[in-house]
Amino acid sequence: MRIGIVGASGYTGVELLRLLHCHPHAQVTYITAHTYAGKPVGEVYPHLHPYANSVFRKFSVSEALEEADFFFIALPHGEAMVAVSSLLEGDCRVCDLSADYRFSDPKTYENWYQVEHSSPKLLQEAVYGLAEINRDAIRDTRLVAVPGCYPTASILALAPVMNQIPANGTSIIIDAKSGLSGAGRALSLPTHFAQADENMKPYNVGSHRHTPEIEEVLSSLRGEKASVVFTPHLIPMNRGILATCYAKLGEGISTDAIEPLYRSCYKGSEFIVIRGEGDFPETKAVSGTNYCHIGWHFDDDSRLLIVASAIDNLVKGASGQAIQCMNIMNDWDEATGLESLGIFP
Amino acid sequence: MRIGIVGASGYTGVELLRLLHCHPHAQVTYITAHTYAGKPVGEVYPHLHPYANSVFRKFSVSEALEEADFFFIALPHGEAMVAVSSLLEGDCRVCDLSADYRFSDPKTYENWYQVEHSSPKLLQEAVYGLAEINRDAIRDTRLVAVPGCYPTASILALAPVMNQIPANGTSIIIDAKSGLSGAGRALSLPTHFAQADENMKPYNVGSHRHTPEIEEVLSSLRGEKASVVFTPHLIPMNRGILATCYAKLGEGISTDAIEPLYRSCYKGSEFIVIRGEGDFPETKAVSGTNYCHIGWHFDDDSRLLIVASAIDNLVKGASGQAIQCMNIMNDWDEATGLESLGIFP
Amino acid sequence: MRIGIVGASGYTGVELLRLLHCHPHAQVTYITAHTYAGKPVGEVYPHLHPYANSVFRKFSVSEALEEADFFFIALPHGEAMVAVSSLLEGDCRVCDLSADYRFSDPKTYENWYQVEHSSPKLLQEAVYGLAEINRDAIRDTRLVAVPGCYPTASILALAPVMNQIPANGTSIIIDAKSGLSGAGRALSLPTHFAQADENMKPYNVGSHRHTPEIEEVLSSLRGEKASVVFTPHLIPMNRGILATCYAKLGEGISTDAIEPLYRSCYKGSEFIVIRGEGDFPETKAVSGTNYCHIGWHFDDDSRLLIVASAIDNLVKGASGQAIQCMNIMNDWDEATGLESLGIFP
Amino acid sequence: MRIGIVGASGYTGVELLRLLHCHPHAQVTYITAHTYAGKPVGEVYPHLHPYANSVFRKFSVSEALEEADFFFIALPHGEAMVAVSSLLEGDCRVCDLSADYRFSDPKTYENWYQVEHSSPKLLQEAVYGLAEINRDAIRDTRLVAVPGCYPTASILALAPVMNQIPANGTSIIIDAKSGLSGAGRALSLPTHFAQADENMKPYNVGSHRHTPEIEEVLSSLRGEKASVVFTPHLIPMNRGILATCYAKLGEGISTDAIEPLYRSCYKGSEFIVIRGEGDFPETKAVSGTNYCHIGWHFDDDSRLLIVASAIDNLVKGASGQAIQCMNIMNDWDEATGLESLGIFP
Repeated sequence: MRIGIVGASGYTGVELLRLLHCHPHAQVTYITAHTYAGKPVGEVYPHLHPYANSVFRKFSVSEALEEADFFFIALPHGEAMVAVSSLLEGDCRVCDLSADYRFSDPKTYENWYQVEHSSPKLLQEAVYGLAEINRDAIRDTRLVAVPGCYPTASILALAPVMNQIPANGTSIIIDAKSGLSGAGRALSLPTHFAQADENMKPYNVGSHRHTPEIEEVLSSLRGEKASVVFTPHLIPMNRGILATCYAKLGEGISTDAIEPLYRSCYKGSEFIVIRGEGDFPETKAVSGTNYCHIGWHFDDDSRLLIVASAIDNLVKGASGQAIQCMNIMNDWDEATGLESLGIFP
Repeated sequence: MRIGIVGASGYTGVELLRLLHCHPHAQVTYITAHTYAGKPVGEVYPHLHPYANSVFRKFSVSEALEEADFFFIALPHGEAMVAVSSLLEGDCRVCDLSADYRFSDPKTYENWYQVEHSSPKLLQEAVYGLAEINRDAIRDTRLVAVPGCYPTASILALAPVMNQIPANGTSIIIDAKSGLSGAGRALSLPTHFAQADENMKPYNVGSHRHTPEIEEVLSSLRGEKASVVFTPHLIPMNRGILATCYAKLGEGISTDAIEPLYRSCYKGSEFIVIRGEGDFPETKAVSGTNYCHIGWHFDDDSRLLIVASAIDNLVKGASGQAIQCMNIMNDWDEATGLESLGIFP
Repeated sequence: MRIGIVGASGYTGVELLRLLHCHPHAQVTYITAHTYAGKPVGEVYPHLHPYANSVFRKFSVSEALEEADFFFIALPHGEAMVAVSSLLEGDCRVCDLSADYRFSDPKTYENWYQVEHSSPKLLQEAVYGLAEINRDAIRDTRLVAVPGCYPTASILALAPVMNQIPANGTSIIIDAKSGLSGAGRALSLPTHFAQADENMKPYNVGSHRHTPEIEEVLSSLRGEKASVVFTPHLIPMNRGILATCYAKLGEGISTDAIEPLYRSCYKGSEFIVIRGEGDFPETKAVSGTNYCHIGWHFDDDSRLLIVASAIDNLVKGASGQAIQCMNIMNDWDEATGLESLGIFP
Repeated sequence: MRIGIVGASGYTGVELLRLLHCHPHAQVTYITAHTYAGKPVGEVYPHLHPYANSVFRKFSVSEALEEADFFFIALPHGEAMVAVSSLLEGDCRVCDLSADYRFSDPKTYENWYQVEHSSPKLLQEAVYGLAEINRDAIRDTRLVAVPGCYPTASILALAPVMNQIPANGTSIIIDAKSGLSGAGRALSLPTHFAQADENMKPYNVGSHRHTPEIEEVLSSLRGEKASVVFTPHLIPMNRGILATCYAKLGEGISTDAIEPLYRSCYKGSEFIVIRGEGDFPETKAVSGTNYCHIGWHFDDDSRLLIVASAIDNLVKGASGQAIQCMNIMNDWDEATGLESLGIFP
């Protein structure tokens, strides 16, 4: 299959190039990047030297549709929906890594992202690309909205127990920690090495744009509105998200009942590694991979569940998950091209 | 004043040596370290080269009492209480950095540390050395139990609002992150560079020994039992603790009422820097210093307070705080020898 | 082909397991580790969860020869030669990652490693496994001595110009920098996170055991004794070696003549990426891969060549290179199982 | 003494503020920063909260001369000489941290920095501020050019042996490694956390502007032109320079003769810590301090000396050294305000 990557010079774009390099059924035939248009990929990114003869191009809908059949959109939100809607006028399928098609209601999007949605009709078609909870819908769509990195980690940690969390109870608390590649390639003081190294801090507390995304999915899983408190932190490392989640479960559930909930929910989901009670995950074990490790502790007395998940924000949190969706959309084995293990140490 | 440091070769011990080097009223005259007995301090620790002619000695009570008047005990728990109780048979005062005298009830200590307490009577005398809430008692005692690093960060974040947290409400959640110097100098796989670098994970969830210490102090501040969920994490950096705390406040309190609670509680406490609503702290701003920075976000609707504090675990979380106590015990300015600012970047 | 890994719980061992997981012609059927004998691989190393059902075993020659055809030995030097010589009494082939078979003269080995060589005859048979200079010999042997990490980086940087360095000239200087995974999994103060983080220093100056290995190979390439000054440094990162080499070239060579020497030497060596004059490599571009990037600067006046190479010490510097040798020994494409690109950022 | 800091918002500027905070004879009364003019210092830099009431101002010569007597100039090169020459028309003394007054010949400056020198007369007056070799001249001048960070480390490592290095011999090689704070606060891809973390590389090989500075000083120490090959590297840490230097000494000198050369050269220079033969320095031991640690290895046969020095690039390599010069210019103890020990670990 001929693959196009639109906006390929950001970190999720180059991660797609890295991962697709070993994919047996996909060949990248069309690569765009506004800033680097005209430059060989391997010159801008030395680690992509096998792409030495591929050149970043300016995006053109007609050229794109001629040269590729399946597209990954790795553009900033707002720009992505323009590219997606024009591509989908042609004959192709799309995985969009931006936030543009993640919400069912354009109002939610517009409130949080401060951009008017230019193709609200496509929102109806778009499928939220979290394979572990949405596999069937992904198979049948031509537009997947790939989840954000924090929502991926948070939802995977909480999905199996959403039905055990009373709707009128206290908020679910998600204390999330991310390495700095999650902030992208754009320069800023908080991501300047000398400021970020040997430093940690919360940011966007109470206002991070991944909050409504997490709430929408968790609410839909429970069938009733879920209220989430989401606190992201910057951690001085490159890749990795750890989501430590706190939720009070309903009466009657015991410690022994937790593991079966996870096993049953993730049966057949080979990228989920369930570690179990008291066996918490570490981010390094999933570095460079599409895996999500999950472990928890449940206190019978207080009925508080502490569950933590670890992912690589650029793989399971973005480009790997996008490829997982592509595999499903093509009825290929879901793990095709994503089998490699974590880089450790 | 002549100072003795017992157990001076661990990280809190050498931090005492670093900080006391510039203290105008204190002179270190007695230094012990079992493992390095006989070796010059400056040879074991190149950064302490001005101590080139000081030699680590084996601990002897009689020599100690002859050569110093005031002692810092930086021994492991269990060993510390033996040294403290024998020193206090002589004429001296002591700041103990171990956990041995932090609990009012020896049972709590024995449950969590699995050691029988050999001097329970001294527990009655010992004062918990968190100056910001215990200044007067510290002034008048001869034995200070210097708080643990996590409890220091956690209690300072929560003390001003304890009266606003209903006693029958949900648990207080403390999601704490620590750099690796907090794990000390003892070798272990989790603190091996190749394992810890570019990695993060929760550890001792539901069973960390700082939990009962935090609960005892917060309960005493509120006058009623406080239930705390404490989740520590290892973060790939050297110094720094960030405690992100979640507590549901009672009805009637508004966003504007929070800052006055903090200002009033920490009036006269110059090491507390109150940053305010939406202005969260970062650990790097306190690196190498005795300061604690505090910021928060309060949501009027859910009444959930998210408050974060940042300290240097080896200074305000251990050796700096011990010196702060020594200053108070001697009626010196509380900040003597602790005025230096953070190393940034 | 059935693969055995002897000593599989160290960093080079687990790296072999990671890389072989995706190798199409090889299946790991026999895994030993003294310390962890009896434990499932996936329990000791969470990133190897697909090996959840494989169990570390104690090494037994007879079992080994029954269950595998090709062996990687990842034991400490001294132990390795015992395992190798007993395995080679059976019908199998071996890549030894230790130093035991890297020297042609057992005396050199014994001088530097302080161990008597127990199988000097096998030294005659052993082939130094640097494919880029020794490809044909590797194809025909049953025993490959996989090069050390520093020698790999150093020799690849200098091999193409050895004939341009006058034998009676000044020493070749190799200033090498390594991440800490190169020091292995054994605990020590210099590799303790709190000591190594934010720190750098030279070590074993004038006495590092990789010096004679580099000198032997470079001498053999030139046909005359080459004298090397080798200064390794510890750098606070996990993976990566950067070898910055300084050599004074003979009269008559010009800047333009350098690149053709490199191109010609490494023609057909697909793991070598020649960057060119003024285009120096960075370690991150090769992280997790078997590639070696090389760049240089030549000053026509002083005739001093500064050439730097970057490798991943655990892949091209150890386990990847071992697999490259296995591929050659089996007439498979040299890059089989080693095609994945660098993890960036 | 009233101190003015011109260009105080860069990393050397804030380091001056940090260090002067504890200086007993100096009070910072005038602080400028173009970008942050009007903002409180403590708001821009949380670690400088005691400067909460000081406000960054726009630079004005007349105001400056009214409000301060002694100036530190922490402006970019080119801008610095304009500020210095106008200030020196008034009654004041100046330490300039830029490169503008470091060269005796304006041609050298103009060649390397591509800026015309606007006050070449002042070059005659300016004294190179490396106290350890220039103490007397510093005492008597009104204009000190504070050395660059790499030159400080390199010259301190080599000064004692310059007379032992034959003038017609091979080049001196300086392989230098620096943490990223040396690149300043300006944003760039190479200093973006995700690019710099877990990465190392040489840069500006053969063209770094510190080369002529090192050559000029070393030549002057020897009395004959010294030719230097200088290769800087970026290392993923914040503070610290390690300069590993290689020089071939003349006939007749033996290992035992090296240490006396260092002891004699640095007699009375309390910031130099001579570690000795085989005892190499590490950067962490000097972190946050004005110290320089030096160790070496000399090979009697090849007569090659490998000498390494470690400094904190922002202290001994910039702001601390500037304060050291100020102390000398005022006949205060050279170490005043610079006594604090290294932050370890």
